[in-house]
Amino acid sequence: MALLVQKFGGTSVGSIERIRNVARRALASQRAGNDVVVIVSAMSGETNRLLGLAHGVTQVPDAREMDVIAATGEQVAAALLALAIHAEGGQARSLLGHQVKILTDGAFTKARIKTIEGSKIFETVKKGQIAVVAGFQGVDENGDITTLGRGGSDTTGVAVAAAIGASACEIYTDVDGVYTTDPNICPSARKIAKISYEEMLELASLGAKVLQIRSVEIAMKYGVPVHVRSSFSDAEGTWVTSEDKTLEDVVVAGVAYDKNEARVVVVGVEDKPGVVASLFGQIAEKNISVDMIIQSATSGRGQRADVTFTVAKTDLARARPFLEEIGKALGAKELRYDEEVVKVSIVGLGMRSHAGVAAKMFKLLADEGINIQAISTSEIKVSCLVAAKYTELAVRTLHEGFGLSKA
Amino acid sequence: MALLVQKFGGTSVGSIERIRNVARRALASQRAGNDVVVIVSAMSGETNRLLGLAHGVTQVPDAREMDVIAATGEQVAAALLALAIHAEGGQARSLLGHQVKILTDGAFTKARIKTIEGSKIFETVKKGQIAVVAGFQGVDENGDITTLGRGGSDTTGVAVAAAIGASACEIYTDVDGVYTTDPNICPSARKIAKISYEEMLELASLGAKVLQIRSVEIAMKYGVPVHVRSSFSDAEGTWVTSEDKTLEDVVVAGVAYDKNEARVVVVGVEDKPGVVASLFGQIAEKNISVDMIIQSATSGRGQRADVTFTVAKTDLARARPFLEEIGKALGAKELRYDEEVVKVSIVGLGMRSHAGVAAKMFKLLADEGINIQAISTSEIKVSCLVAAKYTELAVRTLHEGFGLSKA
Repeated sequence: MALLVQKFGGTSVGSIERIRNVARRALASQRAGNDVVVIVSAMSGETNRLLGLAHGVTQVPDAREMDVIAATGEQVAAALLALAIHAEGGQARSLLGHQVKILTDGAFTKARIKTIEGSKIFETVKKGQIAVVAGFQGVDENGDITTLGRGGSDTTGVAVAAAIGASACEIYTDVDGVYTTDPNICPSARKIAKISYEEMLELASLGAKVLQIRSVEIAMKYGVPVHVRSSFSDAEGTWVTSEDKTLEDVVVAGVAYDKNEARVVVVGVEDKPGVVASLFGQIAEKNISVDMIIQSATSGRGQRADVTFTVAKTDLARARPFLEEIGKALGAKELRYDEEVVKVSIVGLGMRSHAGVAAKMFKLLADEGINIQAISTSEIKVSCLVAAKYTELAVRTLHEGFGLSKA
Repeated sequence: MALLVQKFGGTSVGSIERIRNVARRALASQRAGNDVVVIVSAMSGETNRLLGLAHGVTQVPDAREMDVIAATGEQVAAALLALAIHAEGGQARSLLGHQVKILTDGAFTKARIKTIEGSKIFETVKKGQIAVVAGFQGVDENGDITTLGRGGSDTTGVAVAAAIGASACEIYTDVDGVYTTDPNICPSARKIAKISYEEMLELASLGAKVLQIRSVEIAMKYGVPVHVRSSFSDAEGTWVTSEDKTLEDVVVAGVAYDKNEARVVVVGVEDKPGVVASLFGQIAEKNISVDMIIQSATSGRGQRADVTFTVAKTDLARARPFLEEIGKALGAKELRYDEEVVKVSIVGLGMRSHAGVAAKMFKLLADEGINIQAISTSEIKVSCLVAAKYTELAVRTLHEGFGLSKA
């Protein structure tokens, strides 16, 4: 008899009929001999409806009150699922963030979980009931309702699984697993049977949307096996687990891309110690994350250099007036912006023991005439910034070139 | 500087524009030098939408989960109002039932308040913030969310006012006060400036819908002055307070009617000790409330009598098979049912010191040819059951006859 956590996303509970389907699935797992804890997101569209109400009242809503409003989406979904389980002949009880209780810090709209009490959940499953926990929400030390940010129900699922020592956390979604790359732009993409936490973390960070990054971090930290699978079929999905020997054989596990990058070139800053540090120090103070960075000397004339870096496209409008100001202060000639870029990445644990992976990536892209504008690497990934128009070509080329395409 | 509780009903917060209006009102009260606590209902229509979702999942939803769902209506309204107050330049903080905390018994969907902690509210108003409390909801000793039944936000308002020692509880609604009778059927109805708790309680019990009965009971018990007024005008409404000398002069304060009555006649039961007691004992066991009762001897032939009583029309379908069964067991010849009846009532503290009020009521009705089918009285009210077709005529006749019509 195992203790199982099952997390269902917004599309999985997007209608009364789908909620019934989730109820049947959870009951089937229970009847198969498991103690079952279900984590639910709000019905799809509901969170946006609720946030729309708040924005109808004021342009800049207070974060504390936003969370009070947003948390109702999961509250309703959890109770509806409990009712659906009753209707299918089972027993269930909804539990909210403050009831469980899921204690977070006080960072409204993007809170982080500190601790989770397991007693209410254990009490519930011991009675033979399915515990239906509202995802995405917690409570801070003042008893205020908090939310974990978009995709936060994944985090609730994995964190609850860790807290109660569940044998696994199943993440039910509208795709049937993690793919070697986005099947929408690369038809030969394959479902991955098993992937390591480290690789999953890189893929999620580099643009793959199937799991929230924070949830993978928690799964890795506590060693919770995560099973990403479809809520509309019984097929096995993708297991995200600790690396083991069988994983080592794969050099590249997946190809990711991220269109939310914008390139900024600060042209002709003084090339002396402290200038670049000052530039990035001031950007960081404004809470703007910089991703890739290249400093290149200009063509000889004196002590001037160009600094190229990327920021999130969604941050650019906010960052731009501020960047202009810093540029001026540092004596830059001008600033250039390019939003027509994409970051293409390869990820794989095997890179650690295989030389030449990055070089092979550069050659594959060059052979297709794709110019690389910036590069960043880590122990298990290589990312290249290229013109956005090459997105599909670059992804397919790398997917094929590293042997990921279907046999 | 007074501490003031203001309760706004569903129509008063029925749209974003109306929520803004409530925000301005609350802020005006605060700027006039008061500490302000606002209690809100769900936006009009929202509770029905939420209950509709639950009924879409199952015909007989579990009461605990119903409350989890229903409570979100007030949760959203409270946070939206806090945001609207911010948008108007004020400070506010929403507080839910479990945050305040409003401790109730565990009777889901019709819970009764046991205690209310004032500390979170005091802490909020002391910071210069308006405390916006979600009405209708509480939390039981297990930490489960409960609701107080339809109209429960009135009860929250008065109970919070009692708990924190507010100078008054203002009940903002879509009418501008308590009327001598329903202005829709009696155009000469007048707004009452001041009415006693006892009279208001009788009027509410006898069909006047402006205040929930339970809220008047609490106001009376704790001596909270209640001011019923319109959220769309600044005019004074009706004060519900302890009786004082000025109130004594009025013999009849108001005329109420209640169409939710059905008459049941149990024809020809044995007229011997214990039979009637057995009848009503068995009805009570089924949790069906009986209102008016008459026992009349039949025309001579032996020891048989008819027993007439009324039950709520909404209970009749459920009660009928059961009543037939009891009737048979008691040897009744037949049972007759009549739903085409109305209970018309006059209410007034002055009746205690004025003789002949009931007799005058019967004569006024008789003069219009209205037959009285049953009568019930208390110290401060007289109710008559008459055919439903006479509703308007009976109400207008009594309103005029007892001198309540406009000068």
